[in-house]
Amino acid sequence: MPVTAYQDLETRFRRLYALREAAGVLHWDSSTVMPKGGAEARGEQLAALGVICHEALTAPEIGDLLDAAEEESANGAALDPWQAANLREMRREWRHSTALEADLVEALSKAAQRCEMIWREARPASDFAAVLPALEEVVSLVRRKADAKAAAFGVAPYDALLDEYEPGLSGARVAEIFDDLAGFLPGFLGQVLERQQAAPRGPEGPFPAAVQETLARRLMAAAGFDFDHGRLDRSLHPFCGGVPDDVRITTRYDEDDFLTALMGVLHETGHALYERGLPADWRLQPVGQARGMAVHESQSLIVEMQACRGREFIGFLAPLAAEAFGGAGEAWDAETLHRLVARVEPGFIRVDADEVTYPAHVILRTRLEQALVAGDLEPRDLPGAWNEGMAELLGLTPPDDRLGCLQDIHWYDGAIGYFPTYTLGAMTAAQLFAAARDAAPEIPAGLAEGDFAPLMAWLRDKVHAKGSLHSADEVLTEATGKPLDPAVF
Amino acid sequence: MPVTAYQDLETRFRRLYALREAAGVLHWDSSTVMPKGGAEARGEQLAALGVICHEALTAPEIGDLLDAAEEESANGAALDPWQAANLREMRREWRHSTALEADLVEALSKAAQRCEMIWREARPASDFAAVLPALEEVVSLVRRKADAKAAAFGVAPYDALLDEYEPGLSGARVAEIFDDLAGFLPGFLGQVLERQQAAPRGPEGPFPAAVQETLARRLMAAAGFDFDHGRLDRSLHPFCGGVPDDVRITTRYDEDDFLTALMGVLHETGHALYERGLPADWRLQPVGQARGMAVHESQSLIVEMQACRGREFIGFLAPLAAEAFGGAGEAWDAETLHRLVARVEPGFIRVDADEVTYPAHVILRTRLEQALVAGDLEPRDLPGAWNEGMAELLGLTPPDDRLGCLQDIHWYDGAIGYFPTYTLGAMTAAQLFAAARDAAPEIPAGLAEGDFAPLMAWLRDKVHAKGSLHSADEVLTEATGKPLDPAVF
Repeated sequence: MPVTAYQDLETRFRRLYALREAAGVLHWDSSTVMPKGGAEARGEQLAALGVICHEALTAPEIGDLLDAAEEESANGAALDPWQAANLREMRREWRHSTALEADLVEALSKAAQRCEMIWREARPASDFAAVLPALEEVVSLVRRKADAKAAAFGVAPYDALLDEYEPGLSGARVAEIFDDLAGFLPGFLGQVLERQQAAPRGPEGPFPAAVQETLARRLMAAAGFDFDHGRLDRSLHPFCGGVPDDVRITTRYDEDDFLTALMGVLHETGHALYERGLPADWRLQPVGQARGMAVHESQSLIVEMQACRGREFIGFLAPLAAEAFGGAGEAWDAETLHRLVARVEPGFIRVDADEVTYPAHVILRTRLEQALVAGDLEPRDLPGAWNEGMAELLGLTPPDDRLGCLQDIHWYDGAIGYFPTYTLGAMTAAQLFAAARDAAPEIPAGLAEGDFAPLMAWLRDKVHAKGSLHSADEVLTEATGKPLDPAVF
Repeated sequence: MPVTAYQDLETRFRRLYALREAAGVLHWDSSTVMPKGGAEARGEQLAALGVICHEALTAPEIGDLLDAAEEESANGAALDPWQAANLREMRREWRHSTALEADLVEALSKAAQRCEMIWREARPASDFAAVLPALEEVVSLVRRKADAKAAAFGVAPYDALLDEYEPGLSGARVAEIFDDLAGFLPGFLGQVLERQQAAPRGPEGPFPAAVQETLARRLMAAAGFDFDHGRLDRSLHPFCGGVPDDVRITTRYDEDDFLTALMGVLHETGHALYERGLPADWRLQPVGQARGMAVHESQSLIVEMQACRGREFIGFLAPLAAEAFGGAGEAWDAETLHRLVARVEPGFIRVDADEVTYPAHVILRTRLEQALVAGDLEPRDLPGAWNEGMAELLGLTPPDDRLGCLQDIHWYDGAIGYFPTYTLGAMTAAQLFAAARDAAPEIPAGLAEGDFAPLMAWLRDKVHAKGSLHSADEVLTEATGKPLDPAVF
C-alpha cells in the first residue's frame, strides 16, 4: 500500500515523541531517585537523546515531506480535521527547529545546564555575582536564538520566544493585558488587605510527612487521579512529569504546615489530569499534546485555586484533615482552613504567593525578561531592576537576592518567554471555571462532597480531549463563548 | 585536525552507548516504579530507542568506517591495546546488528515487553495459558532472530544466541560440560544429602522488611557499594540494572525468612561492584563493558556463594543479624546460620537453590531452550517438558506452573541463550576465588571482619578493570593460570 507523505510524517513523529517521552522519564528520574553520582552519565544520556531528536526533526526529508503533505492536502487528499491540525503542528515544530543552527542549540543547552548548576549553589548563598557570568552567557545565547527565530518567522524577538510556550502569543498582547492588571492590582490589593481579618489561628503541627502523603493520595484519587497510570513522589521542586499514560507528580513536605504541600499536590494533579485526558488516539503525535503552557497552567489552577481552595471543597477537606492528623477544635474548622488557604499577603516569593499577588510577581518577571531580550536591560543590572519593580508592584524590597532575582530557576535554565503563561493560565482558569459552573451547576455540590466527576467531565470534554486540535483562544471560545477575557479574572 | 576512522567510530559508539544507557534506566524503571498502566507507552519508548540504536549501528557508514579503521591499523596507525580491543568489539557488535532486519528488532522488543507484562500477572496466578499466546510470539521471533544470525555467522542457531551473552560459546561446548555435570550431579547430590545433618532450627520470624533492608544496606556498604553511585530497591524479580556510575540493584523481601533476600542482595552487589569497577576511561565504549555474562555471574557468585556463604563471613554476620532482629540463642549462632546458608535441598525454585542443585535447574532450562529454538519443543508443551525434566534431574514434580515453568522472567522477556551462563559463571567463580585466596591469604581474615577490601582489590585488578580488553578465557588464564576448568567446580 503506498504511503502518503502525511502518513510517513506520522510514523516519523511517533518515533520522535517516543524518544522525547523517554527523555521525560529520565528527567523525572533525575529529580526524584537518581543518586548524585549518576549526574554525569545522565547528562550524556539526555544530550544524546536531545541530539537525536533535533536531527530527526531537522533532517532535510522532513521539510520535503511537509511540503508534499501540504500539497497533497491542497490537492484534495482528504485529511480529517485532526490530521490537518496534526500537519499544522508538525510544520510549527519544524519551523522552530530549523530556525536555529545546531551549534547554537548545543551551545545554549550546555550554557543553560552550566548556569543552572551554578545557580543551585548561588541561590541559597544569595550570591548573584557568582552566577552572573554564566547568566550573561545564557542571555546572550537566548538573544541570538530570539533574533534567529524572529528573522525566520517575521515577528519580534520576544514574540518568537513566547511562541515556543504559547503559540501565537505576542509581547504586545501580553503588555496590554499586564499593564491593565498592573494598574488595577495595587488598589485592589489595598482593598483586600483592608477588609481581610487577622490571620486565624490554624492547626498546629507537627504533621508527619507520611500522614500528609496518605491524605494527598486520597484527595488525588478523589480528583480522578488513577494510580495505575501515575505516581506521587518527592522532589526538591514539585513538578508534573512522566507521560500521559504514566504521569508522575512530585511534592515536598513541610512537617510544620500541611496545607502548602496538599494544595501543591492538588495543583500538580490538575496538570496530571490534563495530560491523562489528552486524546488517546493521538498519543505521540503533535496534535495529541497539550495546547500550550497557559492552558496547562489553567488546568492546575482550576483544580487548586478554583476548586480546592473554594469553600465547598474545604468543607469536605476539613474533617478529613482533622481525622488524619488527629486534630480537633476551631483551628480545624472549615471556616478557619478556608480563611487560611484564601489568605492574601504580599511576600517576596512567587511560588508562595496567593492569587491576588501572584500576577504582580509574573508582571515583574515578564517586564524584566522583555527588557533583557531587547537589550534594554543587562543581566548585571537585574538585582536593582528587580527590587525597584517589587517596590512598585507590591511595596516590598527584598533584603537579598535569594528572596529576589535568584528565586526562580527559569532564566538560569534558559527559559525566557515562559513567565507570562502563569498569569494567562490563571485568567484562563477563572474563565473556564465560571463557564463550567454555569453549564454544570452540580459542580459545586460535587466538590462539597469531594466528588470532582462533574467538573472533570466538563474539562475533559471541553479542554483535555481537544489536545492541540484548536488554538487556545478557539478552545476558550468554544468552551466559554469568548476568547481570553482578562475582565473575568 | 583530521579525524581518523577509529576516532569517528568512538564518537558514534559513545552516542550509541548513551542511548543504550537511557534504555537501561527505563528498564529499571519498568521493573521497580512504573505503574502498570505505563507499560504500553514504555514499550513504545524502548522500541524507539531500540530502533535508533539498531539504525545507528547498521548505518552503511559504520561498515565502511570499520573497514577503514582496520585498514589504518593494519597499515601501522598506532592503536594501543585498548583501542585495538575496542575496534574488535565494535566489529563484533556490528556483525550481530547487521544480521537482523530493523523490523524484526522492533517486533521482538515490543513482543517481549508485552509478554513480560502478562507474565507478571500470570506467574502469581499460575496461569500459563494466559501468557502462552504472548510467549508463542516471542519464541517465534527469537527463532527468526537465531536463524538470521546463524546464516550470517555460519554457526548453529542456538550458538548465535549464546554468542550475544557469551562471545564464542557454542551449544556443543555447553552440552559437553552440562552432560558431564548431569551425569555426576544426581550421585553427588545423593551423597551430600546422606551426609547432611537434619536442618538446624534457625531463627524464627517475622523479620520486618524494613529491618531486612537496613541490614542489607549495611552489608552492601561493607562489600564496597557506594550509595552515591547506586540504589537498592524492590522488584518482583531481583536484578542489577542502571549504569556503571548509577548502578541499581533490587530484591524482594519475605518476612518469614531474612537469609534469602540478604544473600540475594549480596549476589546483586557482586554484579554491581563489577559494573562500578569497569574501566572509567572507557565508559560508553564497547571495550569498557562487562566481559560476557558468565564473568558477570562469576562476580555475583564470588560475593554471594564464595564469600558471604562462607564460614568466615557468617561469623561476622551472625551477631549483626541477631542484633538487628532482636534475636538470641542457638538459632542465631554462626554455626546454625552457616548450616542454613550452606544447606543442600532440592527445590522447585532456581533462585532459591543451593550450589549443588542450582546447576540442575540451569541444565533443565538450557535443554528446553535449545529444543525451543530448534523447533523440537513448542511453547504449549513447556509445562509438561519442564515437569518431566525436574523429575529426571531433581526427582521433584512441581505442583503448579508458578513453581515450574513460570518462575523465571527470562524467556518471557525474550532472553533465550542466557541460562547456561549462570552455571559457567559458577564455575568461573570457583576458579577465580580459589586463585584469589592463594594470591591474597588475607582475604578470609578480612571477610571474618566484614572487610571485603582485600577480595575486591584482587577482583578489581584482575577482572573489573579489564572491561572487555581480553576474552573471558584470557581473563581467567591471566588471573588463575588456566582457562575455564570445570573440574575446579
